Amino acid sequence: MKQIAVIGFGVVGGGVVSLVEENAAYIRAAVGDDVRVKYILDLRDFPDSPYRDRVIHDAGRIWDDPEIALVVETMGGVRPAAQFTLEALSRGKHVVTSNKELVAREGIALTREADAHGAAYLYEAAVGGGIPLLRPIRTALTGDRIESVCGILNGTTNYILTRMRDCGAAFGDALAEAQKLGYAERDPSADIDGLDAQRKMMILTAAVTGVLVGAEDVFTETTARLTVLDIDAAQRLGGAVRLIGMMRREGDGISVSVCPRIVPGTHPLSHVDDVYNGICVSSRLSGDVMFYGRGAGRFPTAGAVVSDVIAALSGACRYEANRVWSAPPAGFVRPFSELTGRMYVRIGGISPSQAAESASALFGDCAEVPGTPEGKTEFVTPAAPDGVLRQRLARMPGVTESAIRLL
Amino acid sequence: MKQIAVIGFGVVGGGVVSLVEENAAYIRAAVGDDVRVKYILDLRDFPDSPYRDRVIHDAGRIWDDPEIALVVETMGGVRPAAQFTLEALSRGKHVVTSNKELVAREGIALTREADAHGAAYLYEAAVGGGIPLLRPIRTALTGDRIESVCGILNGTTNYILTRMRDCGAAFGDALAEAQKLGYAERDPSADIDGLDAQRKMMILTAAVTGVLVGAEDVFTETTARLTVLDIDAAQRLGGAVRLIGMMRREGDGISVSVCPRIVPGTHPLSHVDDVYNGICVSSRLSGDVMFYGRGAGRFPTAGAVVSDVIAALSGACRYEANRVWSAPPAGFVRPFSELTGRMYVRIGGISPSQAAESASALFGDCAEVPGTPEGKTEFVTPAAPDGVLRQRLARMPGVTESAIRLL
Repeated sequence: MKQIAVIGFGVVGGGVVSLVEENAAYIRAAVGDDVRVKYILDLRDFPDSPYRDRVIHDAGRIWDDPEIALVVETMGGVRPAAQFTLEALSRGKHVVTSNKELVAREGIALTREADAHGAAYLYEAAVGGGIPLLRPIRTALTGDRIESVCGILNGTTNYILTRMRDCGAAFGDALAEAQKLGYAERDPSADIDGLDAQRKMMILTAAVTGVLVGAEDVFTETTARLTVLDIDAAQRLGGAVRLIGMMRREGDGISVSVCPRIVPGTHPLSHVDDVYNGICVSSRLSGDVMFYGRGAGRFPTAGAVVSDVIAALSGACRYEANRVWSAPPAGFVRPFSELTGRMYVRIGGISPSQAAESASALFGDCAEVPGTPEGKTEFVTPAAPDGVLRQRLARMPGVTESAIRLL
Repeated sequence: MKQIAVIGFGVVGGGVVSLVEENAAYIRAAVGDDVRVKYILDLRDFPDSPYRDRVIHDAGRIWDDPEIALVVETMGGVRPAAQFTLEALSRGKHVVTSNKELVAREGIALTREADAHGAAYLYEAAVGGGIPLLRPIRTALTGDRIESVCGILNGTTNYILTRMRDCGAAFGDALAEAQKLGYAERDPSADIDGLDAQRKMMILTAAVTGVLVGAEDVFTETTARLTVLDIDAAQRLGGAVRLIGMMRREGDGISVSVCPRIVPGTHPLSHVDDVYNGICVSSRLSGDVMFYGRGAGRFPTAGAVVSDVIAALSGACRYEANRVWSAPPAGFVRPFSELTGRMYVRIGGISPSQAAESASALFGDCAEVPGTPEGKTEFVTPAAPDGVLRQRLARMPGVTESAIRLL
């Protein structure tokens, strides 16, 4: 019998407890032993829960109980989750988490502590919800070298952008609708400003390279400035606006970014709609592989936690790459301003002929955008380093209403 | 040092040998030991190959060499590949294969032999080429129950159907083009008649359920009768025609089929174009997850073989579900004729008004298809058991030019 503890009896933690109970026979077959939730740590009591007799308020009972082989951390936040995780790992107990903020911020210390005590620290549920993503990256692609990862990692913003396209809703109205449906938090800034996707990109990058970059290493841009005119322009260019997280090898280093991009209609990510996530993994041998599915939700996330519980208790996770993370060596992260790309630009407030003249003087040979609305000027710049494009854009006369990178 | 042998030095086998050599450091880290190709078994000599000194013609040297821990079988076909595989497994040597025909036909005997001797029999490369698919199904989704698998598994037919849509090419012309580009064999029947997808569905079904069904249990229909008018009708219905393999749980049993279907534009499979494959896995907890990528090619396939070599030699594969397959119990496979669905139908040779009258008399309330060409009648039937739809179709007056199932 393997006994486990669940820290945080909220939406995901509650889902984990009921999955472990309901799938007992299946989990026994996979682990080779019975698995039982012995403790549920929470500040609250749950007098109506069938699991009320397992609820405890004193974390020490978990650390001091040698029967506890594994701790599921679904409490969220950095403090005290980090301390609880270290306590468990330092006693050789495995830890499985859905807490992306903690993994992204403290992953180096936590993976090292796990390694030092022969324990596993697993976080499949932190990225892509129920989509099997980190495990395939760390196991099935082992015969290969991953060159880039590029994807839609935040369901809330993707829902908003899809509604703006399909119903012509303004950003704020689509956001309000997402909040009403429970897709967005009351304080939506982590989603719409790209912080949620930023953390997921940090974890994905570490899973691929073994290096955990800092939040400041990820060029991050908000979606909150996008308008219906932007969405419309992307459609006129044959594509769609999506919040894209991207990690790419650049020589001996990497670049990592999270920003709105116009994705061409020929790219599979342009068809990832609503709250779905899609992640493209490009590798030397296999080319582009895409993983697609629901990136959030109680049971998808709890299911991913349970798959990690099985991997840890069966020992299967010992065969996964990049179990210990390190900090980026000097120069490892390439400045985003040096990376070459193209931008869609929309200008208002000056005459189209004057704007077109300035654009070609500043950027060279720009591509036209079909169906530009009256009084506006739109163009797509030639490829140039991102910093150069931004500098020249600052010198454009008139009002720069929008500048969106192309994928 | 772990020594391995490669049987069949063709496109895939050659790719495996060079990958193992080129990625030696990486593979050593994953396996925990050096891995070296000691023998290459082939009928031919390869005087110009850098590996010519490892080429042997006597299979017995492999079986009798206790240093050989694993055999890669990339020769294809059933005889003598089955015999070679049994020889290796019976001596406790792991076998990794890309040979879908062999796995689909002899999988029960081969997985049992492997189990009896504590060896692994792995076949990730047999389905979906370089897309990590069987391993995620057998490991990452372990906390979950898979209800259905539905996908585009044959790149050749998908290329043909994409060309018919994009260029209005006839089936035969698109096929000839695929042959010119090396996407289709000179004898294309295994691809276009659905046998290749049928074998892949048999393997996928066994990976999900542990039961290997027979070829006769898979309702299979050719793509060769599809015309440009069919492709056009699917577009007018807002979708696309695709060769769809589908496995679904039905009560205590399952159904398995491979046939052309009209996929609605809202379904992610409708955007899988050209030679790409896409496989949707629906599970109770995670909902729909899609895996997408190149389903064939030398290096994607060889990369999948190498990932299996690593899984076998590291021992990681011990934690995968459904390692031993069994035959279907009586009544396990539901007859396709009992499964409910809808069909698109096109009729010629009688007046549209007469055809419409017959259709509503035979099928009840049919849905209209926008933009029907002059002189034809098109409709979409209500949902009914497949056998019933086919019986009624046989009683339609006029010429039934086309009947395609909807997804």
